[in-house]
Amino acid sequence: MSNFVVPTEDMKFALDVVGRIGEISKLNGFQHLDTQTVGDIIDEAGRFFTEVIAPLNRVGDEQGSTLDDGAVTSPEGFKEAYRAYIDAGWAAAQFPEEWGGGGLPYTVGLAINEMFKTANMAFSLCPMLTHSAVEALLRHGSDEQKALYLEKLVTGEWTGTMHLTEPQSGSDLGSIRARAVPQEDGTYRIFGTKIFITWGDHDLTDNIVHFVLAKTPDAPAGTKGISMFLVPKYLPDADGSPGERNDYRIVSIEHKLGIHASPTCVVSFGDGGEGAVGWMVGNEFEGMRNMFTMMNTARIGVGIEGLALTERSYQQSLAYARERIQGRRPGGTEEVPIIEHPDVKRMLLTMKASAEAMRALIYHTALHNDLAHHADDETTRRNAASTVALLTPVVKAWCTDLGVEMTSVGIQVHGGMGFIEETGVAQHYRDARIAPIYEGTNGIQAIDLVLRKLPLDGGDAVSRHISGMTEVMDRMHAHPDLEVFRDRLTSAIQGLVDTTEWLSARLGAGETDVVLAGATPYLRQFGLVTAGWLMAVQAVAAREGVEGYDPEFLEAKVANARFYGEHLLPMASGLVPTIKAGTDFLDAVR
Amino acid sequence: MSNFVVPTEDMKFALDVVGRIGEISKLNGFQHLDTQTVGDIIDEAGRFFTEVIAPLNRVGDEQGSTLDDGAVTSPEGFKEAYRAYIDAGWAAAQFPEEWGGGGLPYTVGLAINEMFKTANMAFSLCPMLTHSAVEALLRHGSDEQKALYLEKLVTGEWTGTMHLTEPQSGSDLGSIRARAVPQEDGTYRIFGTKIFITWGDHDLTDNIVHFVLAKTPDAPAGTKGISMFLVPKYLPDADGSPGERNDYRIVSIEHKLGIHASPTCVVSFGDGGEGAVGWMVGNEFEGMRNMFTMMNTARIGVGIEGLALTERSYQQSLAYARERIQGRRPGGTEEVPIIEHPDVKRMLLTMKASAEAMRALIYHTALHNDLAHHADDETTRRNAASTVALLTPVVKAWCTDLGVEMTSVGIQVHGGMGFIEETGVAQHYRDARIAPIYEGTNGIQAIDLVLRKLPLDGGDAVSRHISGMTEVMDRMHAHPDLEVFRDRLTSAIQGLVDTTEWLSARLGAGETDVVLAGATPYLRQFGLVTAGWLMAVQAVAAREGVEGYDPEFLEAKVANARFYGEHLLPMASGLVPTIKAGTDFLDAVR
Repeated sequence: MSNFVVPTEDMKFALDVVGRIGEISKLNGFQHLDTQTVGDIIDEAGRFFTEVIAPLNRVGDEQGSTLDDGAVTSPEGFKEAYRAYIDAGWAAAQFPEEWGGGGLPYTVGLAINEMFKTANMAFSLCPMLTHSAVEALLRHGSDEQKALYLEKLVTGEWTGTMHLTEPQSGSDLGSIRARAVPQEDGTYRIFGTKIFITWGDHDLTDNIVHFVLAKTPDAPAGTKGISMFLVPKYLPDADGSPGERNDYRIVSIEHKLGIHASPTCVVSFGDGGEGAVGWMVGNEFEGMRNMFTMMNTARIGVGIEGLALTERSYQQSLAYARERIQGRRPGGTEEVPIIEHPDVKRMLLTMKASAEAMRALIYHTALHNDLAHHADDETTRRNAASTVALLTPVVKAWCTDLGVEMTSVGIQVHGGMGFIEETGVAQHYRDARIAPIYEGTNGIQAIDLVLRKLPLDGGDAVSRHISGMTEVMDRMHAHPDLEVFRDRLTSAIQGLVDTTEWLSARLGAGETDVVLAGATPYLRQFGLVTAGWLMAVQAVAAREGVEGYDPEFLEAKVANARFYGEHLLPMASGLVPTIKAGTDFLDAVR
Repeated sequence: MSNFVVPTEDMKFALDVVGRIGEISKLNGFQHLDTQTVGDIIDEAGRFFTEVIAPLNRVGDEQGSTLDDGAVTSPEGFKEAYRAYIDAGWAAAQFPEEWGGGGLPYTVGLAINEMFKTANMAFSLCPMLTHSAVEALLRHGSDEQKALYLEKLVTGEWTGTMHLTEPQSGSDLGSIRARAVPQEDGTYRIFGTKIFITWGDHDLTDNIVHFVLAKTPDAPAGTKGISMFLVPKYLPDADGSPGERNDYRIVSIEHKLGIHASPTCVVSFGDGGEGAVGWMVGNEFEGMRNMFTMMNTARIGVGIEGLALTERSYQQSLAYARERIQGRRPGGTEEVPIIEHPDVKRMLLTMKASAEAMRALIYHTALHNDLAHHADDETTRRNAASTVALLTPVVKAWCTDLGVEMTSVGIQVHGGMGFIEETGVAQHYRDARIAPIYEGTNGIQAIDLVLRKLPLDGGDAVSRHISGMTEVMDRMHAHPDLEVFRDRLTSAIQGLVDTTEWLSARLGAGETDVVLAGATPYLRQFGLVTAGWLMAVQAVAAREGVEGYDPEFLEAKVANARFYGEHLLPMASGLVPTIKAGTDFLDAVR
């Protein structure tokens, strides 16, 4: 069923040119790596996800995960594939060696996670949440908690989940009601109902470790009163073997538009009367802060889903457009494959160029995450951390909006066949629709960008980011075929400077609603322009030659970058009046 | 389940101001009508579709139509509702009284069809195709065919279907293989397989009349060799009672992304060996031409679906946003309904303003259809017919693309609940996705616009259309709050003049591929700007006062129009460079 192949060559090129693996491999702890080694890892992982994980995408959609007698069964083949995934060490790739990890840079681990998402988005959510759990323990866990759980989670032997949402408490977690009652032995008893718990139960592993937000007695109101608790499905004994079943149950799983293989659970804690046994992670009342550190990397992970489904739908659409014979060229007599029609080419190039643009934005962010943790000097680390903070909402929202739009284009390329479920391309459109919603809706990302990230470092973070874009301009000058792209990029950057200054001034003047009203179109402009710059960086690199790539491959990179620059990037200028349109309209709907 | 209400007040306002019912009621044959009478009809129809048809939308999606033993069963309640629909006379509203019709203008009939689509899109396809069948018979049927079939189809007593597509023959019908073998008695025997036959079978009526494209022996190759045949399910006797079952069978129905209630059939003719009995409609080899006259109104019908699902999703999203309590306003302490958040308001207004813009574009086109048929002088008729021809691809493609985008926004307003099927808002997103595909993909509409419609009347049709937009500008001047909108509209129209001239010049120079490469973004610009003009017309009318409407309603019209003009219309300028970007990219994907 699946003729999908992980796009390893595209990924390696972007890792080289934008992810700057050469630079990362000079950082402390990664000096054993070089471009060649990373390339080999990418190739090997590519084979694994192409052959083992990708073929399960359709069956996952068709069968879905099912709930029977309080226990979730994953679709056929998932359990064996998961075993192969952890046995090969892919689950642990990006984590420290001392806890059984592969010791690879974040950027390379992210590329491996991208492969999982492209091969099988619904399945990938299980390791994604486990990675969040690992981060929670690495940063906030006690030595005892680390000793008992960390290696199991790093290797993927056990999986992790995140319990935030409650029926009355989604985007705003301040109103959660789950209770944690302290016990004399230092543990807590957890009571309450959580919803939208991704992979909240399954049959892939012997144990599942839940990270649950709850309130201790007499906790302050709102988000300031939230603490985080670790609640294992089976209570491990001292040597880590799963023992007694904890007191919670899976009430139901949701019937969703997409990601059918991913069980979305309603979980009820403490129904048995005694309460589920939990351990506090980190300090009391710091649950929100702890959750946020993890959510930031999870947000980048969700951003990858926009890229992943675009790539997946693109490959399927390209194959179809090459095979499907329909219509003639103007003046022609022979029927041709539909890829010969300019409008079909336009659709395919829109998908392809968008995928490359998203990948560039994501790898650029990942590079700065590695720099933030491993660079030698503190200024570099601090600035890099600000860049990650600035770009995280853009990665999350811009990429996932594009994922919805591009999977829609993929259906369109297929014509009537695209609407038939058996074709499989509709699945990507259904799957893609959750990504703008979870891990903070895209509206919340836009609010985060304008209210919290624009003022970062007193406005220096965004200034540094934008002024960093001009360097590529001089290099573009040397290549006459990049002249139009250069003009478009120049106006696009001017537009971004204009709106950034305008929004910052409004924010400074306390006109918060005006800023909030322009937040979503501003985020879109921010993504379009930043990715435009990174496409220019790739075009220039391809023009100047990158070692190890075929000239034809490099030509295609230039062409795709030009398509982005000349066809997609100009849309950014249309957003400027919208961003600055203000709040006059706010009362028109009530 | 359904708390949807047909938006009769919005419809009446648009019928008055843009559909210009006052003007239509002065035309020959419609002099018994006035604004008040039409308003009463709209109100009565609104009640019917709200109460009888809309509540069946969910059950239609959940149960779907099913195929058992070669016969299709429609979802629970559909049969009774269909009976009520034809008994009330809504099916016949827009057809001539001599054939049992209601004798209403096309514009009013279209508004009634809009109600059906908004209430239940999948269900509405059955009457929509019957309407096409009526037009085929009215224009091309013999007296005998009219006598036997026309009144049954007009009243909806029987339904009609259109058989075009075959497995190898979708967008390009030249390659169809269905055969029609002439018999001595003047009938034909039909053989072959047709796919994607909407409502190809069902249990709503006693008979179904299929209109089938096929080739007679020795027909010329390509579309020039196609003829149209009428093939009833049951062969009627001389007094019209259904008799013997014709020789075709329903092989299967498709498992689709959306419109589950609409059975999409694979039909095999002549499997019994003798061939299905059919009668030629119109002249031999004129099947394509006959089909095209019908397809033009069907294309407007499909365009309505973009509006319909936007309206439907908007009403549901608005209700949710008013009820769902989540988050606080900046500086506030109380949790508020999410409609209070500027970004949620922005989403709702985008949906609302888009629905009003689409409705205006559609009614404007409908008005010209009435003028084309009923105006006194020939120049008016001819010019109006050109306007309809020019705007038909824009109505079809611009509205259906927006329908997909706006139903996606509807899900976003719902947050996590939007992704749960039981909420019902995901159905609109799934249903909406077929509209950009069927009745000619939106890419084909764009090709039609640039290759056939721009050169219409030697370019006069498009010039007349665009220069007709300037009159409203002077009237806007009188209203200071419309000044920004006026500026935006001025640049938007300038941009449209620019691209129209540029494309026409390229076309004149024979650079067809350059024109085809810009066709889709040009159609989008064309729709955005034309609808922008009609929103300005409505804003000015509302500012100047329209009799019979509440001042608050008129204020909201102005506000929505301004939102469109200041927030959405500026996007048109971003499309100009894209439209003129040319074909350099065409070889980047192969």
